[in-house]
Amino acid sequence: MENTGYDLEKLLMKTYDSKLSENGVSGERLAKRLGRLSQIGLTEDNGSRRPGFSLQEREAKDCVIEWMQEAGLTVREDGAGNIIGRLAGKQPEKPVILSGSHVDTVPNGGHFDGTIGVLSSLEVAQAWKDTGYIPEKPYEVVVFTDEEGSRFNGGLTGSEAMMGDTDIDAMSAKRDFEGRLFGEVISDVGLSVDGFKEAKRSFEEIESFVEVHIEQGKRLEKENLPCGIVTGIAGPYWLKLTFKGLAGHAGNTPMTDRQDALVAAGHFIHYISHLPGKINDSAVATVGNIEVKPNGTNVIPGEVVVYVDIRDIYEESRQQLITSILESAETISQSWGISLETETVHNVAPVPIPKELQEKLKKAASASGITPYALPSGAGHDAMIVGQHLPSALLFVRSKKGISHNPAEWSDLNDCVQTVKVLKHYLESIQKD
Amino acid sequence: MENTGYDLEKLLMKTYDSKLSENGVSGERLAKRLGRLSQIGLTEDNGSRRPGFSLQEREAKDCVIEWMQEAGLTVREDGAGNIIGRLAGKQPEKPVILSGSHVDTVPNGGHFDGTIGVLSSLEVAQAWKDTGYIPEKPYEVVVFTDEEGSRFNGGLTGSEAMMGDTDIDAMSAKRDFEGRLFGEVISDVGLSVDGFKEAKRSFEEIESFVEVHIEQGKRLEKENLPCGIVTGIAGPYWLKLTFKGLAGHAGNTPMTDRQDALVAAGHFIHYISHLPGKINDSAVATVGNIEVKPNGTNVIPGEVVVYVDIRDIYEESRQQLITSILESAETISQSWGISLETETVHNVAPVPIPKELQEKLKKAASASGITPYALPSGAGHDAMIVGQHLPSALLFVRSKKGISHNPAEWSDLNDCVQTVKVLKHYLESIQKD
Repeated sequence: MENTGYDLEKLLMKTYDSKLSENGVSGERLAKRLGRLSQIGLTEDNGSRRPGFSLQEREAKDCVIEWMQEAGLTVREDGAGNIIGRLAGKQPEKPVILSGSHVDTVPNGGHFDGTIGVLSSLEVAQAWKDTGYIPEKPYEVVVFTDEEGSRFNGGLTGSEAMMGDTDIDAMSAKRDFEGRLFGEVISDVGLSVDGFKEAKRSFEEIESFVEVHIEQGKRLEKENLPCGIVTGIAGPYWLKLTFKGLAGHAGNTPMTDRQDALVAAGHFIHYISHLPGKINDSAVATVGNIEVKPNGTNVIPGEVVVYVDIRDIYEESRQQLITSILESAETISQSWGISLETETVHNVAPVPIPKELQEKLKKAASASGITPYALPSGAGHDAMIVGQHLPSALLFVRSKKGISHNPAEWSDLNDCVQTVKVLKHYLESIQKD
Repeated sequence: MENTGYDLEKLLMKTYDSKLSENGVSGERLAKRLGRLSQIGLTEDNGSRRPGFSLQEREAKDCVIEWMQEAGLTVREDGAGNIIGRLAGKQPEKPVILSGSHVDTVPNGGHFDGTIGVLSSLEVAQAWKDTGYIPEKPYEVVVFTDEEGSRFNGGLTGSEAMMGDTDIDAMSAKRDFEGRLFGEVISDVGLSVDGFKEAKRSFEEIESFVEVHIEQGKRLEKENLPCGIVTGIAGPYWLKLTFKGLAGHAGNTPMTDRQDALVAAGHFIHYISHLPGKINDSAVATVGNIEVKPNGTNVIPGEVVVYVDIRDIYEESRQQLITSILESAETISQSWGISLETETVHNVAPVPIPKELQEKLKKAASASGITPYALPSGAGHDAMIVGQHLPSALLFVRSKKGISHNPAEWSDLNDCVQTVKVLKHYLESIQKD
């Protein structure tokens, strides 16, 4: 449903310092485009609903195609629905510099997650066109399909297809909330499972990738900086731990005769909250999900399942954290006479950002008058997928209060424009390599 | 459904030492009657399903009425469906000695919970008749209606009605799992809401109450004793605690910037498990139920609700435990920057058993050749309701492995018969008072 009262462009322009528009970069245009996209799938709460493979995602892609053409890019679409706008540059035979993000959103999400990355990459191309700058190397702006994965409980679908990481059989077997098969759903937007097989690109034809994304955290806000340079993407590792004790009557079982699975799990949850800090500043561990059986007020819990989400940007320190969490689970269970089962249910390797790309982004920040600030990314992005195969950089824009996946998601236009300028400096700096 | 293969009488007789049958008490008769009742509402798992106000509970009551008549008791039924079998005794004008329990069961419960109490009281009356003993005081065997409360999520319905504790309006508004109103359901077994109002008895007409019940715990098994004397019934006190933190992304929120409600709740659950032991041996505290919001693996829990079941047989020490639990919840929440809301959702006062009744039961045990052993009751029974108004005693029979509310519930016939003998000694000893 369209909420005609909502005007994102106007809201963005309210606090915009128009002196920031220079060298072809236009905050006004960025605001207009963010505003235009915000109207596609606008929710009653002024949020965004553009699930992957929906007509809304398709419409947003079509908008971007129009703007790509405006910027002089040659547009093509691959078999996974990824949109690619190409500027051949002076040496079109060279490997390409790829830059972009996604335009799909979670149900009732915000207007910056994904879109700001696509529009930043596009703004650089438009600025180049408007100022007559022609890069040495080919430059491609990309819109990846279905990054959020809200429809098939997955995500990163387009970038995985381009990297050849798609498990076609598993993907084909997936059903959405209506019970419709993947192949059937994607046919609504003109895609096919066979197309996914053809989306993989040769790694030789791409030199590197760079993505702009909102931080979805509060570090930049605390540092009072418009943008920051990501040092690595913390791959999530999910441990499922089952504490098995003995159910019993809450009244008739003396305290000294209990094997209370929840007391052991509570001990564990509290204890491990101290472990990441012993490793480094970027490591985190969270128990967000717990199942208690039978979960009756007057019954001693016989079984408790907890899921631990463990992340760090470095494989080695993440492994250190996993090991110490498993060891504490073992020690704590034993101390309560509880048996323990452990299972790894999800494991995405951390993706460190190559040091030389971080250095170049730092120089680009300095050149734009911004103090270079390094921070980890706790969430996955398309750069996490591409970064497993190709040198990839990630630039964060400050998020208000760290709120994301929510209509209240916000980044000031001043911050967005400053980030575009850092991206532009960076993209120009790597033309000489 | 009737499972004709199950023969409880035969199972009970297998290990029975028939020398225990003496002075009119018959283990053979007790086994036959337990066997007969086990066939009413027998489940596929050889368990018992006789919910309060069901035709099965009614049929079990009718069996007991027949046996009451056999024992020479005059049978009446009150407005709540409580069955009362009266032996007038030598001085029928004196206040009555009341003894009994219930015949309803939880869905797929066992064959001893409730029935052993009714049949023990009945066995004493039958033994008296068979040996020509006539008590001084009137003796009444009672079958209380709906002790378990599985149909209307309540319980102790018959004993509450007899004590005048029923909240008639609240009771009338209750609906069962099919959405049928209380009044409609009880009309199936010939009862009415108006009848409940008339069930209250004058406390002057009853001298005391005594109930035999299975222990539903493992203390007697550990002590290797057939029965034990209850010192008090631990009334349950339920605290609802809401820990309110701040939800956030499990990847993007540094450990030092979290208000994780589950870490605070885990800390609390672990900490309070040590508190009852500091108070006394009978105090217990259990967190059996927990709700985590939003309960997503990659989301820091923003809110956690825990229910704490706190019990002790003494009001004062229970209050001490409640206070120290509330204080720890406050201290722990503050240490994690979490706000706390507390609410009392259930509060039944503990019922101490009068010392002189305990003493008389001890003498009766000794007279029966059994070492007197005192133990608390963590669960509520009809004696908990009657005990709030009238002197009430409670005698526990050993439960195998403490299992109850389960088809595996078991008490050896030897233990049951020994308990009947203690009850008989006790009932005879109080005739002289």
